[in-house]
Amino acid sequence: MYNYKTPLREIHFSALEVFDYVSHYQQLSGCEDINEELFKTILDQGAKFSNETLVPINASGDEQGCHWSQAGVTTPAGFKEAFKQYADMGWQGLASDSAYGGQGLPKSLGIIDGESRVGGCLAWSLCSALCLGAANTLLAFGSEAQKQLYLSRIIAGQWTATMCLTEAHCGTDLGLLRSKAEPQDDGSYAISGSKIFITYGEHDFTDNIIHIVLARLPGAPAGSKGISLFIVPKINTNSAGELLQHNGVSCGSIESKMGIHGSPTCVMNFDKARGYLLGEANKGLNCMFTFMNTMRLGTANQGVGHAELALQKSQRYARERLQMRSISGVKNPSGEADPIIVHPDVRRMLLTQKAIAEGGRMMVHYMAQTLDIAERGSDEAQRQRAEAKLSFTTPIGKAFLTELGLEAASLGIQCYGGHGFIRESGMEQNYRDARIATLYEGTTGIQALDLLGRKVLGSGGEILKLTTDDIQAFCHTDFSEALTAMAQQLDQLCQQWLELTGQIGAKAMVNADEVGAASVDYLMYSGYVMLAYFWLKAARLAEPKVDQDSDGFYQAKLETAKFYYQRILPRTLSHKEAALAGAESLMGIDEAGFCFV
Amino acid sequence: MYNYKTPLREIHFSALEVFDYVSHYQQLSGCEDINEELFKTILDQGAKFSNETLVPINASGDEQGCHWSQAGVTTPAGFKEAFKQYADMGWQGLASDSAYGGQGLPKSLGIIDGESRVGGCLAWSLCSALCLGAANTLLAFGSEAQKQLYLSRIIAGQWTATMCLTEAHCGTDLGLLRSKAEPQDDGSYAISGSKIFITYGEHDFTDNIIHIVLARLPGAPAGSKGISLFIVPKINTNSAGELLQHNGVSCGSIESKMGIHGSPTCVMNFDKARGYLLGEANKGLNCMFTFMNTMRLGTANQGVGHAELALQKSQRYARERLQMRSISGVKNPSGEADPIIVHPDVRRMLLTQKAIAEGGRMMVHYMAQTLDIAERGSDEAQRQRAEAKLSFTTPIGKAFLTELGLEAASLGIQCYGGHGFIRESGMEQNYRDARIATLYEGTTGIQALDLLGRKVLGSGGEILKLTTDDIQAFCHTDFSEALTAMAQQLDQLCQQWLELTGQIGAKAMVNADEVGAASVDYLMYSGYVMLAYFWLKAARLAEPKVDQDSDGFYQAKLETAKFYYQRILPRTLSHKEAALAGAESLMGIDEAGFCFV
Repeated sequence: MYNYKTPLREIHFSALEVFDYVSHYQQLSGCEDINEELFKTILDQGAKFSNETLVPINASGDEQGCHWSQAGVTTPAGFKEAFKQYADMGWQGLASDSAYGGQGLPKSLGIIDGESRVGGCLAWSLCSALCLGAANTLLAFGSEAQKQLYLSRIIAGQWTATMCLTEAHCGTDLGLLRSKAEPQDDGSYAISGSKIFITYGEHDFTDNIIHIVLARLPGAPAGSKGISLFIVPKINTNSAGELLQHNGVSCGSIESKMGIHGSPTCVMNFDKARGYLLGEANKGLNCMFTFMNTMRLGTANQGVGHAELALQKSQRYARERLQMRSISGVKNPSGEADPIIVHPDVRRMLLTQKAIAEGGRMMVHYMAQTLDIAERGSDEAQRQRAEAKLSFTTPIGKAFLTELGLEAASLGIQCYGGHGFIRESGMEQNYRDARIATLYEGTTGIQALDLLGRKVLGSGGEILKLTTDDIQAFCHTDFSEALTAMAQQLDQLCQQWLELTGQIGAKAMVNADEVGAASVDYLMYSGYVMLAYFWLKAARLAEPKVDQDSDGFYQAKLETAKFYYQRILPRTLSHKEAALAGAESLMGIDEAGFCFV
Repeated sequence: MYNYKTPLREIHFSALEVFDYVSHYQQLSGCEDINEELFKTILDQGAKFSNETLVPINASGDEQGCHWSQAGVTTPAGFKEAFKQYADMGWQGLASDSAYGGQGLPKSLGIIDGESRVGGCLAWSLCSALCLGAANTLLAFGSEAQKQLYLSRIIAGQWTATMCLTEAHCGTDLGLLRSKAEPQDDGSYAISGSKIFITYGEHDFTDNIIHIVLARLPGAPAGSKGISLFIVPKINTNSAGELLQHNGVSCGSIESKMGIHGSPTCVMNFDKARGYLLGEANKGLNCMFTFMNTMRLGTANQGVGHAELALQKSQRYARERLQMRSISGVKNPSGEADPIIVHPDVRRMLLTQKAIAEGGRMMVHYMAQTLDIAERGSDEAQRQRAEAKLSFTTPIGKAFLTELGLEAASLGIQCYGGHGFIRESGMEQNYRDARIATLYEGTTGIQALDLLGRKVLGSGGEILKLTTDDIQAFCHTDFSEALTAMAQQLDQLCQQWLELTGQIGAKAMVNADEVGAASVDYLMYSGYVMLAYFWLKAARLAEPKVDQDSDGFYQAKLETAKFYYQRILPRTLSHKEAALAGAESLMGIDEAGFCFV
């Protein structure tokens, strides 16, 4: 079995060459000291941790899974030790506020570095991802005392955190949630209710777990405007953080799932558990956006990780597996057959994986850079523009990259043939693990409604225009003869994107269902156009370097860009047609007409 | 958890209405007695067996899996009993020759009935599917004594059978196989070698297993022209079928797989095992086509089964799960939210599943009818034409329907949101089970090469023309105003299909790699056009019946056809572009250029 290795060369290319992160940091408040050397050192160390500590526990963690008993949840062998090592090395606080023990580096660095952990062991990485989401929420909305007590320990990896949103009857529709918070005389709240799908709700990594719980105050407005956030520790503490008695929180069971077996997915029962209001009463859902955006960007990164893992293992296998002769003439005369990488269709699968992994990485690096500017940009207008662009790209990155990550993982199985279906190959684990990514943190359908309904049409198209303006400005710069056709194609696609949006918008004025009818195809269309933008950037950057190209790295970039434009980008044709097909063919059929058994 | 039910109404619609199987049987030699009542009775009984016996062991079989020990392989609880019941009821011989104990019914009936078992429990159904493939091979190539001894017992379900093709170093490329057959003085052969991926190679259903093994005779030509077939029983017998001593066959282990856990996938070791030549020496691969075509049609049916199962469970869930309000106004005022079936994007997913399941079923019924004619048609020219059409449609049916079955299964998970990832829902099992179907019996890539290279271009396009002629003749008949646009669209697509073929063919004359470069996109394009043909047939048939439509069944057919043409058929646009993109963007990149870690 081939093992995953963090693709440092690729990460450097995207971050340092395509997005020139060194200049970016030089212009970013508080980040001026991050030079190329420091950047690479951090990524090197992150890769070392992933490749030496996480990669070895990925398959065994899947095999062993988590085990629940009344006493708690046992994670797979090595998971706990890996978390301790991660915490001790200070990784959990890499991009967190230095006032609470973090290293104060920009969020982008944590995101760029994070790909390595997702590729190494997704199931393990979810705990630290949730801690980061919770930390960002505590930082944004917590009181100073809450930050000192909880945030600093989460950043230190001394305690972990969860986000308790979902209940059995409500996932997407959080307005329906029923968990209750009763005010107590001492200013705390008694939290009662049952939550499901709580990732790392219980585990053996640390001796305390800080749950951030959505619940309703007495008399709160119905629906999503009556939800508040509460901090509910597993073990009560004093203000110095010393552990006191158990709180009224228990893990009732863990789910048996398709994948991410190393990550315990818990049913969490709160029985008059002691909790503390986080942020303003009834503003809980607003506060959740901080958490959700962190998680959605992180999930986009998972799509990249799945695609990269699939590519690495597929291309190794394709170069070694001998089967059939090349139809255009024997390529490996000394062997009994040619390696399957000679076959055009195998190359089609590998190039698709490559275009997804490397294109997706650029999309994530773009989002991370935009996030930095939204947070630390030099002026308010710049920050707001970046915030708008990020808000536009987040649902695309989350949904499009996880859908494509799943496709790449599936192609990974396909490259291995029947062997891909066997657990030993590791390809099917990647596929099973990848399958969650289009579901959690908002399904593809939910991201698509957010994109088309709330953001694009909600802004009268303004938010889309910010991005198409960037892309079209790029298209109108000078390109070599070889790339001019691609730039023209992309320019026209942007125009078509705007027109498509206008057409859907006009229909939606008449019938609101037109938004949902078009949304997923619109999102996928948008994703393909954005990936074309990044591939053109990569191609232009690679082109002049081909001459001094000792190992063909830059030539491969040019080839992949060409492949993307010729073989993948045509998918916009069918998504456009489908997005314009309208609601009628969806809404006409009777509810009882879908099935007659 | 909702359970699968055989969709008898849908099967009747496709078989009895769209393809008028009653008239078909009246014109088919030896089948004149099959009337509608008999047809329905057989399907009813098959459904009863599936729904009462197989459905209850599907999830538990997945959970328990198979267990190997030196003593043999234990299958999940209920599997053995189900097989005994199946055999005792005579199902294994339904469509087999009555001279050997079969019921002599046409193959189509076995195929149409087979959907029920695939939907009920795929893992279980594979044993009987392999027995059928082996039985067809024995019937075609076995000696009379071999048929009396082996075929009759396989048909009776007294013994089972396997096909032992794959070795660790060769799957697709059987020419590389190394298993040996040494002639013995008594006319038998000593078979030695190791085979992998042998479905039901060992189990506890029956007391003997007949392996059909590919091996090489001494001095046989290298490659695929030196392969012979041998019958190798697990337990040696006398000619009366009485069990004697164990043969030199043993199961070394079983694979740990992504899905179909109830089906043991065995490593089979042959150590000078006593075997008997089946068919002519060195003609083994030719004989295998009988087996492969049986299995490929059966696998196409699996795509239908996965899609149907996904649809049934998704639509039930979508009608019951309350989440969010319809964007176009509250639909369920007495509930705390609307059922998710009101949301356009959920309907898009359900209709996609429905278009795949019901369209795929029509494709399978078309293939089954064509197979009947190829075997029992009244004159040689008719039989040959049917054989050619079937040969053209088989790779499309196998690859396209399994790819779409997997998509429908994935949408099934997506409809359930996070709950779809949980084993309890059953959706993820369907998806895991469905994942094998694009791999075994020849991957999608192999089917695509078979279609485009060997069959379409190999016949100078003649074989495609047989089908486009049928479709275009249908398009040129009279349609209602509502359906005329669809007929015109389909007619144009056929024209485009021929042109596309010509363009690829011209390129392939210059560079043979153009075939592999275009093949999978060409196959998918072909599949979408053929499905459009069947959906137009269904729509025309349904249209006049809408008026007396008590439950909206025919109206739903019209709506689904419209959906298919508006939302799914546009996928031909991107497949066409990709198929025409040529080999250059695939072959240009260096072998070492796919990955730089």
